Amino acid sequence: MEHEAILILSGGLDSTVLLYHLLEKGVRPLAVTMRYGQKHDTEVTMARRTAAACSISHRVVDLPLDTIFSSSTLLKGGATIPDGHYSDETQRSTVVPNRNLILLALAAGIAEDRGCSDVYYGAHATDRAIYPDCRPAFIRAASAACEEGTYHRVRVRAPFQDWSKTDIVREGARLGVPFENTWSCYKGGPTPCGTCGTCVERREAFCKAGIKDTGV
Amino acid sequence: MEHEAILILSGGLDSTVLLYHLLEKGVRPLAVTMRYGQKHDTEVTMARRTAAACSISHRVVDLPLDTIFSSSTLLKGGATIPDGHYSDETQRSTVVPNRNLILLALAAGIAEDRGCSDVYYGAHATDRAIYPDCRPAFIRAASAACEEGTYHRVRVRAPFQDWSKTDIVREGARLGVPFENTWSCYKGGPTPCGTCGTCVERREAFCKAGIKDTGV
Repeated sequence: MEHEAILILSGGLDSTVLLYHLLEKGVRPLAVTMRYGQKHDTEVTMARRTAAACSISHRVVDLPLDTIFSSSTLLKGGATIPDGHYSDETQRSTVVPNRNLILLALAAGIAEDRGCSDVYYGAHATDRAIYPDCRPAFIRAASAACEEGTYHRVRVRAPFQDWSKTDIVREGARLGVPFENTWSCYKGGPTPCGTCGTCVERREAFCKAGIKDTGV
Repeated sequence: MEHEAILILSGGLDSTVLLYHLLEKGVRPLAVTMRYGQKHDTEVTMARRTAAACSISHRVVDLPLDTIFSSSTLLKGGATIPDGHYSDETQRSTVVPNRNLILLALAAGIAEDRGCSDVYYGAHATDRAIYPDCRPAFIRAASAACEEGTYHRVRVRAPFQDWSKTDIVREGARLGVPFENTWSCYKGGPTPCGTCGTCVERREAFCKAGIKDTGV
């Protein structure tokens, strides 16, 4: 068994902190990043940087959901990303249909292919308002589906599922995560816009944690 | 709402009969076919033929699992497809890791994107021996995961889950399905090999049903 676990590493704040959190616990995962047609594919560059910095194996998988789905503003070709608070109903347009189950199913396939049985991802409580695929009921159901569908009974693990984004920032600071190697802004510009839902969420979390964000 | 349901149409026998079965019931699905790196992509050609014959909308989605997974003989670049009975342990090498959850998650995303709430696929009881992702426990769990992960609470439906392949052949004959527009053989040659697991399964089903297979 080459790796004992798979981590979905988007290159955002949550999954990057989760990687450092796992490494501290002695879990050295294979990181898998999906380039799924997101406008903000700067995060893929960040994921590569983090994997290199942590000397872990890394795979980037291409799955151009932007050629399949038409309803999400998060995808290339979609309408403009809305500004606003991350818990506003307006942010629903940023949902990529069933995204996390697609990513988890693929990652669980990679786990099965390699003979390992854990897939980690960085779902957390602050994202629950808008994203159904970050909620505990979803995480349990996705795990059951992966277990039933694989010989290795691959499980989905989301250790931050009951943490707030503020908790994640604090954990990142404790672990010495270089926040400048993470990317959140949905808009895909050269610098974070500061006004989209995820920029607001990130600023609020750093502010509440009383920690300086070196990534903006 | 353009379509009331999505059907995963592989171009094989089971999903093709399921399409005719649904049409008879007045369900006119959008058919989705995945070209996932299978050696037997003749089935994709058959799916196109069937969709055209039934005048239903059809999408072919490319998801090259053969560049991601290394363990399956079903995928291009994989080892030789084993001959033998479809329920033999030897046939485990034809399993594509977590394939059906990957396909269902994508199809459920397409359903969510279009505002519909049912995804059909052709799982049946004869495939349970080797393929965990055709078993009732998997179907229930996959449905729950899709429901929890989507705003439209997309459900997975597998009306043939308790049918044998023989039952499906009988149903196809009753509905007048042109069996010559379906493809089963895993080996991807110009004509069915007659000796791989799925060729054996198909021959056995037609034989038990007492029906002539016009597709071999």
